[in-house]
Amino acid sequence: MKTQLIDTLRSIVGDAHVLVGGDLSAYEVDWRKRFHGKALAVARPASTAEVAAVVKACAAAGVSIVPQGGNTGMVGGSQPDETGQQVVLSLQRMKAVRGIDQGNLTVTVEAGCILQVLQETAATAGYLFPLSLAAEGSCTIGGNLGTNAGGTQVVRYGNTRDLCLGLEVVTAQGEVWDGLSGLRKDNTGYDLRDLFIGSEGTLGIITAATMKLYPLPAASLTSWAAVPTLDHAVTLLGMAHKHLGAGLTGFEVMGQFALSLVAKHFPQQRVPFFKETPFCVLLENSDHESEAHARTLFEQLLEAAMENGCVTDAVVAENLTQAHQLWHIRESIPLAQAEEGLNIKHDISIPVSSIPEFCRVTDAMLQEAIAGVRLVNFGHLGDGNLHYNVQAPENGDAKEFLRTQEERVNSIVYDSVQNFHGSISAEHGVGLLKVEKLEHHKSPVALGMMRAIKHALDPHNVMNPGRVLRA
Amino acid sequence: MKTQLIDTLRSIVGDAHVLVGGDLSAYEVDWRKRFHGKALAVARPASTAEVAAVVKACAAAGVSIVPQGGNTGMVGGSQPDETGQQVVLSLQRMKAVRGIDQGNLTVTVEAGCILQVLQETAATAGYLFPLSLAAEGSCTIGGNLGTNAGGTQVVRYGNTRDLCLGLEVVTAQGEVWDGLSGLRKDNTGYDLRDLFIGSEGTLGIITAATMKLYPLPAASLTSWAAVPTLDHAVTLLGMAHKHLGAGLTGFEVMGQFALSLVAKHFPQQRVPFFKETPFCVLLENSDHESEAHARTLFEQLLEAAMENGCVTDAVVAENLTQAHQLWHIRESIPLAQAEEGLNIKHDISIPVSSIPEFCRVTDAMLQEAIAGVRLVNFGHLGDGNLHYNVQAPENGDAKEFLRTQEERVNSIVYDSVQNFHGSISAEHGVGLLKVEKLEHHKSPVALGMMRAIKHALDPHNVMNPGRVLRA
Repeated sequence: MKTQLIDTLRSIVGDAHVLVGGDLSAYEVDWRKRFHGKALAVARPASTAEVAAVVKACAAAGVSIVPQGGNTGMVGGSQPDETGQQVVLSLQRMKAVRGIDQGNLTVTVEAGCILQVLQETAATAGYLFPLSLAAEGSCTIGGNLGTNAGGTQVVRYGNTRDLCLGLEVVTAQGEVWDGLSGLRKDNTGYDLRDLFIGSEGTLGIITAATMKLYPLPAASLTSWAAVPTLDHAVTLLGMAHKHLGAGLTGFEVMGQFALSLVAKHFPQQRVPFFKETPFCVLLENSDHESEAHARTLFEQLLEAAMENGCVTDAVVAENLTQAHQLWHIRESIPLAQAEEGLNIKHDISIPVSSIPEFCRVTDAMLQEAIAGVRLVNFGHLGDGNLHYNVQAPENGDAKEFLRTQEERVNSIVYDSVQNFHGSISAEHGVGLLKVEKLEHHKSPVALGMMRAIKHALDPHNVMNPGRVLRA
Repeated sequence: MKTQLIDTLRSIVGDAHVLVGGDLSAYEVDWRKRFHGKALAVARPASTAEVAAVVKACAAAGVSIVPQGGNTGMVGGSQPDETGQQVVLSLQRMKAVRGIDQGNLTVTVEAGCILQVLQETAATAGYLFPLSLAAEGSCTIGGNLGTNAGGTQVVRYGNTRDLCLGLEVVTAQGEVWDGLSGLRKDNTGYDLRDLFIGSEGTLGIITAATMKLYPLPAASLTSWAAVPTLDHAVTLLGMAHKHLGAGLTGFEVMGQFALSLVAKHFPQQRVPFFKETPFCVLLENSDHESEAHARTLFEQLLEAAMENGCVTDAVVAENLTQAHQLWHIRESIPLAQAEEGLNIKHDISIPVSSIPEFCRVTDAMLQEAIAGVRLVNFGHLGDGNLHYNVQAPENGDAKEFLRTQEERVNSIVYDSVQNFHGSISAEHGVGLLKVEKLEHHKSPVALGMMRAIKHALDPHNVMNPGRVLRA
């Protein structure tokens, strides 16, 4: 039966593109090496028709499918389970940029296109594709859509969902839904597009998408500011919205301990101000007029913020190199944390106005529960997304800390998140990692509707079973 | 049985708020008087709990529900059918603005709140709620969400969907889903919010929502430009995106005949340029700096556009009164059309870049099919939405024209829309009016998924049956 399916898959996508045996770890293991699966086979279709045929063959054989893009996810959503009975359907060969429509400010692209390739293709044509995140060199737009990826520009451009106008999808029955669309207004029935976006491959397979483009800004300036408290950071954010309008394209906050880890483990990086202030903020101002105009607006904002005490010190990058250096500090925090040792990560969101109080309350609870615990707090304050990570006490045994404290820490953090009307997964999704947590923290009414929809669109549970919802 | 249900409804919402008999035309007939229904009763609950109880009572009695906001829709989505067996559930009493969260730039509001009240509440607090459309003085935010209303600011702020962060919904089973949320990032499962938005009351009843706010712009300027062709208008739009960035908050196009009707029927209005040019464009520039800055940007844009021939003449409003006068011309087109006589309306969208060719091709087909037919073409070019309306030949019998030509005209227009990958309902929705058309023009795969979802969430077809999808 299984050999027969593999033969069928070979007849569909060609012998060379059905991988069985050998080292398949690139498809079977996630990049953080937390999820180790075993695939029956990896199928690499080259077209939408091939994807549809693969789905039909698997469905007929009663074999379930794990769709996979760049395999860069954070929650175990794109690796097969351990049974060796699932087919990994890799979209990597479907990577064409099908076309740019300049007058419509859209680009149509296949699911396997690397995010950075899409960014560069857009830029070459004179446009901005604003989605930007750490994995952009290897993640795919299909994966970005499947997980509704966020990143650093959400304060201005929204998540991947907000950048998408239409989808091409292969359903769980192996039918092709041509929902590609360059339309900004289309009220003809239920919003199937947004249902597939963020469904993590559990309802069907996104094979292509029409995405929004924006004119390239004339200049992008970066500033780094010392702020005395998180409350001041929130006030600064409100001022930045007012002063910069839609020019505000980045607003990242970083706690002192997070920055101290960068200074400690990457001493070649010069981290401004962190010794004198509990928090620093990174601001980005993208201007459609000129660099001079961007600089004037930044200076007016920072002057006003220093006057009312929201900012105690600030620097505006003089050139692109300096701007990259500032962003590089922010991006080095996860690496510095890893150098410091294992830690417990959280990808949470809270209404922006409640973030200071959330941190006060949750910091205190953790410090009371675990003496000497260290908090690596940083994130996209502009959109309410914190990477609120918990590091073992200094000189403690990090492995032992994780083994004994992870459940307890997660309970404290996620219960607090719920008290503050936040989300336990802001931008990474649910995957396998948070399925049980979701059952605990999501409204039963919402979970009931999700299960009804899953059953309606994928009654035989062919598509990525056990992810998002328990199988 | 039916008397029993009415008694139950009275016990839930109070005698005064169950309307039976008397003149219920405000609830039973749409404002354009195209859809005349007869209700078993009109129930006017005052709270989410009351809405839930009404739904449970109706479901138990096997009586279906027609949710209704301001009853200002265009497609017969919110009136009962003719059987006298449906309950109209009016949300008008649930009109509270529950709260503004300034630091989070959000407002939570009940479904029955009038759009204009929400706009004014936001403005009083110093914020912009950008949704704006002709019916804003009487439509409700619940109806806006149910139909994913569009309007004039979509080029910058998107449709109602794009302005919503979370919903409170009473399901078809009468359960309450508390999906209110002030979060800009939340990837915890399927996007139920966007499924309910635009579902026109067929999946459940939206009772409240958390909506986005923006800082009030420092100034809003309006300009009126003569353009030689639609191709030039599209080029001008691209230039406006580049020059004004996110400041471009309005971009309306109006054909010569549409403007001539305004000049004819409302001679007190001075319509600039229309005699000398086939198209005029209305642009709005909302600036977060100052009026002077907005004016400079506008002048730079218009100068560049006159240099390359996209604009032949232009005026920038000197003050708010002039700006209102210009917008008033645009808003008077539908009224002027009505004065001229009955006409066949279309609310369509086309990828912006294809609009000129669509108009050339479709204009020609209509003119060949019907000698002397007159085209009232205007709309939100910035988001690809045309109100492409067809008026009887001059001095023709408009009633007879509608009776004999409506089907033929619709077929020509909608088939052409499909050829150009457009939508037959850009912002008005499907309701009852376009259910059959949708079956003809929407992909069968998409319709199949829509039916599966409807059945999954509302298996007994309690919620607004026969709208969007055939009962």
